[in-house]
Amino acid sequence: MDVMSRDELEAALRRIGAERYHHLHPFHRRLHGGECSRGEVQAWALNRYYYQSMIPIKDAAVLGQMQDPALRRAWRQRIVDHDGEHDGEGGIARWLALTDGVGLDRELVVSTAGVLPATQFAVEAYVTFCRTRPLLEAIASSLTELFSPQIIGERIAGMLAHYDFINRDVLAYFTARPPQAQRDSTFALSYVLEHATTAESQAAALAALRFKTDVLWVQLDALWMAYVEGRPPPDSWRPAP
Amino acid sequence: MDVMSRDELEAALRRIGAERYHHLHPFHRRLHGGECSRGEVQAWALNRYYYQSMIPIKDAAVLGQMQDPALRRAWRQRIVDHDGEHDGEGGIARWLALTDGVGLDRELVVSTAGVLPATQFAVEAYVTFCRTRPLLEAIASSLTELFSPQIIGERIAGMLAHYDFINRDVLAYFTARPPQAQRDSTFALSYVLEHATTAESQAAALAALRFKTDVLWVQLDALWMAYVEGRPPPDSWRPAP
Repeated sequence: MDVMSRDELEAALRRIGAERYHHLHPFHRRLHGGECSRGEVQAWALNRYYYQSMIPIKDAAVLGQMQDPALRRAWRQRIVDHDGEHDGEGGIARWLALTDGVGLDRELVVSTAGVLPATQFAVEAYVTFCRTRPLLEAIASSLTELFSPQIIGERIAGMLAHYDFINRDVLAYFTARPPQAQRDSTFALSYVLEHATTAESQAAALAALRFKTDVLWVQLDALWMAYVEGRPPPDSWRPAP
Repeated sequence: MDVMSRDELEAALRRIGAERYHHLHPFHRRLHGGECSRGEVQAWALNRYYYQSMIPIKDAAVLGQMQDPALRRAWRQRIVDHDGEHDGEGGIARWLALTDGVGLDRELVVSTAGVLPATQFAVEAYVTFCRTRPLLEAIASSLTELFSPQIIGERIAGMLAHYDFINRDVLAYFTARPPQAQRDSTFALSYVLEHATTAESQAAALAALRFKTDVLWVQLDALWMAYVEGRPPPDSWRPAP
């Protein structure tokens, strides 16, 4: 395999988004199109909380791989964004506004006891990946954020239009998120384009991003199987009838 | 929570099998009842190969936690059973006879490139669990083998009766497996009953076995979603039309 130019590598990374990002999953079309039951929206918010809650732990693993203080200073902002400066602030707290808004018990949500096993395994795989793979791959795996502003735009419009239990306050997470995602993904993309300069490291960066799209896809597959098909695993959380 | 007697703990472990083991999954009913297409049987064999191939790695992780040579001597037999004494022997080789028999390319199978992401995440979660959790929990997580002889009996009878591409040679894995599983699970059960003597360690052993039933269940959910529902993740393996 030949080494790609910087532009070719960026195009290859963006192609992964076009072909594999979870905006293509039928659950998202269902969610944004207003076809989800309230229980399905709850299940989505409940499971996705676990993903959100593990992001700072993932970012701490990435941070812990960085030898350069300047790099660490840039990356630590991600942890600040998620955890906030005080109780009740930050991305995780805003996600809890969403789970509150859709009528979930906060204690249940924070306990993560209602999370589907497949969600748990996928998220753990992501944290382990960032802990154990080379820094370039850990950073490349974050590049799904290149694709998130678009899906978030569709989500806000679709959910406000279709669900009477959703309003702008409940969706505060999503209004705050796109500028952060854009800043973070611009930084991460520059890092990857600068450091992936061999055919081997470019292939590894692309594989890392593909892996991450799998992590996201598996979570929606699990929701679909359990709550759209109506085949939840034994003992798993069920929406109130 | 009170400490359970030895008999109560054994009953509680067996109840997990009755309520959560993957013999209850609709994919198994479909497989054993002859309702699977050849492509679905192939997908099952292909994905399950990955699980089989990781079992000795999981067992090495458990072995590596054992301080007692007598315990290690007993446990190492599991690795021998899977890997055999020579090339072409052992459980993994017998699984390849199955994947050959259902018409899968051996190079594809061994590469594990066709494995569904959810299968990969679930199996990795199992290996990580056995590497990082206390020995008692790692051993307790193996106790799904208490329940496997029954499902294997149903599988052999059902698959021979219903699929013309299945014969006894192809199913050699399953005829060899039940006495090993019985020996292994008897040993592991004795260990757990002897060492889980506090309420806390008993709860941990039960949670470990529940975790393992999730690992198995998630693999069948993934097969169902991809190949029965016909919604395979991007780029994933598809059976020949």
